[in-house]
Amino acid sequence: MGELVFIGLGLHDNEGISVRGLDKVRNAEIVFIELYTSLMPGFSLQRFEKTVGKRVTRLSRVELEDRNGRALFDAAKKYRTVLLVPGDPMIATTHVSLRIEAEKLGIATRIVNGASVLSAVIGVSGLHNYKFGKSVTIPFPDETPSETPYRVISQNRRSGLHTLCLLDINTSDEKFLSIRDALKELLSIEEKRKKGIVTPNTLVVGIARAGGDDSVVKGGSVKEILNHDFGGPPQSLIFPGRLHFMEAEALIVLAGAPKDVGKVRQ
Amino acid sequence: MGELVFIGLGLHDNEGISVRGLDKVRNAEIVFIELYTSLMPGFSLQRFEKTVGKRVTRLSRVELEDRNGRALFDAAKKYRTVLLVPGDPMIATTHVSLRIEAEKLGIATRIVNGASVLSAVIGVSGLHNYKFGKSVTIPFPDETPSETPYRVISQNRRSGLHTLCLLDINTSDEKFLSIRDALKELLSIEEKRKKGIVTPNTLVVGIARAGGDDSVVKGGSVKEILNHDFGGPPQSLIFPGRLHFMEAEALIVLAGAPKDVGKVRQ
Repeated sequence: MGELVFIGLGLHDNEGISVRGLDKVRNAEIVFIELYTSLMPGFSLQRFEKTVGKRVTRLSRVELEDRNGRALFDAAKKYRTVLLVPGDPMIATTHVSLRIEAEKLGIATRIVNGASVLSAVIGVSGLHNYKFGKSVTIPFPDETPSETPYRVISQNRRSGLHTLCLLDINTSDEKFLSIRDALKELLSIEEKRKKGIVTPNTLVVGIARAGGDDSVVKGGSVKEILNHDFGGPPQSLIFPGRLHFMEAEALIVLAGAPKDVGKVRQ
Repeated sequence: MGELVFIGLGLHDNEGISVRGLDKVRNAEIVFIELYTSLMPGFSLQRFEKTVGKRVTRLSRVELEDRNGRALFDAAKKYRTVLLVPGDPMIATTHVSLRIEAEKLGIATRIVNGASVLSAVIGVSGLHNYKFGKSVTIPFPDETPSETPYRVISQNRRSGLHTLCLLDINTSDEKFLSIRDALKELLSIEEKRKKGIVTPNTLVVGIARAGGDDSVVKGGSVKEILNHDFGGPPQSLIFPGRLHFMEAEALIVLAGAPKDVGKVRQ
């Protein structure tokens, strides 16, 4: 009897996977991996294959989405099959679609969780998790310009809530949206809408490579963060809503925000 | 030079920790653990000590909060010190306080992420992560009755968003709030407020032991879920907002929800 186990690789590199996940890979008969739904800057497939002593077949977006994961399902009907994915499985809607499709084909599915960028970014900022509203992804402005992120930040702020913004990546041509370009895009929307949601003086937190040993987190005004060097991807932004005094202290001590952060326009 | 590394144990049992986390425990000079901020039903400290070949000192809430983590900081000033925590560090605000305090004392801190219950519960439900609003914890009604959860569900639903409700636990006397008792409490608030937010016909998803091999997820009306046997803790609830057709399908196929779930009152 086959099965399909979705295993999260966690964050950053080969060491993000859980002990349980590694164990299940070692016991699997067929192992696939996708590395396009999120970016793991330190991950080496070759090194991973050596660790688990197995061949791992990489599947592209075309194979998993346009061809409906045929290779994956053919294997999982007969064999103990694993699909390795960056971060935590099921946060990318592609994984949910694949899981539904597998179950409809009569294939038993399971999930082995990994650390997620969502929780890591929130954690490293020191802001309180239960004060985040809806999160949003900022797309490449030249490909799919969208005012949705601006609107989501605005809605959350009206309720005093923080907004986590993931920045788009395109792993096939190794493009990623930087904090700088994301902020510029939001400022240009501000110029049209003039609601005072993202101005040069708005408080924002930039985070790069959350979960890695070289992660960077920096809080300050938009004009400060625009010129901060965050290094490589992946990068994200948090627009804080109302700050609890402990959150203000966290931004000062842990994110190098200015001492008057509680008074910066939020 | 000392340091303090917060390491997430991930979910459920001894195998939830990442390979990186296990490695850092093995290289640490002093290892502490707290097991009160979240419940890991399959975790054995004795077995963990055997795996890492080290003594691991358990710290209570009193030691970490009332006594301001003195034992932890005394060690971390001089030695490579680890604090192991359930799930992903920094999701519990206690960890953020400890991290701020350590940095103020001049102790370098780091985070090694683990899988978080937040991301696991959302993932196993098949609902889309970016459609969740603010999350909330439902406290024990007999200890700290609160209408906040009802209000949060109501606010999120008005924006079409889903609400994740964590259910309170008290590890010191091994008490946990069950899905059944949480729903009863929400129904009793409904009787007073009469806003039609949580009625016997409202759609809800119950999740138990997310991240474990014996996890249970079940979608249906409140009156159905009230009588469903979810087994042991930890348990959580999701109140869906507006459903995308793919989310409705996920609830039917992955959470055993009734086929007309798209039409159930949300």
